[in-house]
Parts: sequence; C-alpha cells; structure tokens
Amino acid sequence: MKKGMIKLSVMYPNGEGKTFDMDYYCNKHIPMVAGLLGNAVKGATVESGLGSAAPGSPAPYAAMGNMYFESMESFQNSFGLNAESIMADTPNYTNTEPTVQISEVLI
Amino acid sequence: MKKGMIKLSVMYPNGEGKTFDMDYYCNKHIPMVAGLLGNAVKGATVESGLGSAAPGSPAPYAAMGNMYFESMESFQNSFGLNAESIMADTPNYTNTEPTVQISEVLI
Repeated sequence: MKKGMIKLSVMYPNGEGKTFDMDYYCNKHIPMVAGLLGNAVKGATVESGLGSAAPGSPAPYAAMGNMYFESMESFQNSFGLNAESIMADTPNYTNTEPTVQISEVLI
Repeated sequence: MKKGMIKLSVMYPNGEGKTFDMDYYCNKHIPMVAGLLGNAVKGATVESGLGSAAPGSPAPYAAMGNMYFESMESFQNSFGLNAESIMADTPNYTNTEPTVQISEVLI
C-alpha cells in the first residue's frame, strides 16, 4: 500500500478462554465488510498468530485483520457509517474485545 | 504478500511518557535491519498510529513495523540470527518495550 493511505488494524487478543473462529472470519465476516464498504476498501489482509519474540511463547493476538483506505475521509465515509453493523457481527466469531488501531501508512 | 508467508509485527505502545522517534526508525533502524537480513526480507511496511475505534481516542500503538519472510525457516535463519543486534538498537528510538507478533499470512 502506498504512503499516506489509512490502515485499519483490528487485533484479536490471544489467551486462555479466548475464542476466535478463523473460518467464519475469513469466509463470512471479511466478505460481509468488503461488500458493505465496496470501492472504499483498497486492500484487505488477514494473519493468524503463531508466536512472539521468545521461542515458544504465544502470539499476543490470535488474529489480525487489516483494511486500507485512500484517505481518512474515505475511511470515515465507508467504515464509519457501517461500524455498527460490522461490530454487531463480532460475537459470531470471537468472545474477545479487539484492539483497534487506525494508522497512516509511511512505508 | 502471499498466503503462507511469515509476517513479523513489532508494535510500539502509545501513552504518556512513552517516546518514539519516527525519523530514526524509518531512516536508520529499518534500513539497518534490511541491510542485515538482505534477501530474506520480502517486504517491509511502517505505519504511524492516528487513533482507535472511538472518535478522538488515542492509537494503542505509536508505530507498527512489519516485515515479511518466505517461510518460518527463512525468518529464523535471518531475523533470528540477528535478533540481538536488532534489539540493541531499540533504545535509540523508543523507551517502550514493543509487542512482538509472528503471524502466518492467510489473506
């Protein structure tokens, strides 16, 4: 993605008792969000947590989902307007409260 | 990046008293790491935190740096072998302890 774009990162904490349904997330949630937001989404990525710095240590996040937007205005006019419907799907695939980060792409 | 690749995410917590020198990170640290790891690095991205889910709320991370590797073996044989030199540079640009996540790219 190019410099200046807006990146939304949604990170789902890992840990005992925490659940995350990767199949639902990749095959139902992401396509639903992509459908709602249409052309505003310039790219989407999903990663599954494997580990952390120390060998054998657990990943801080079970999964991370990222979406890229052309500008903050485009993000607000697409994701912002649909945030309620998008968030309402969360309990269908996880019992965690995700960490949400909005960033500007520098490199 | 393509499915099955390994992604290293290094996330620097935001907050009162926490420092992060983006100029040093982008212009000294990332090039130094890229030089050490050479061809093993298939891509690198850097993002600057702007906010979180609630309007006006601070970003959980001041910055996030990501590097992609072809496989876990390639990651371990490059980053793993240079981890000590790489980590030794951290105090030159931040007083935080970063959150480190190793992930598998799914989408």
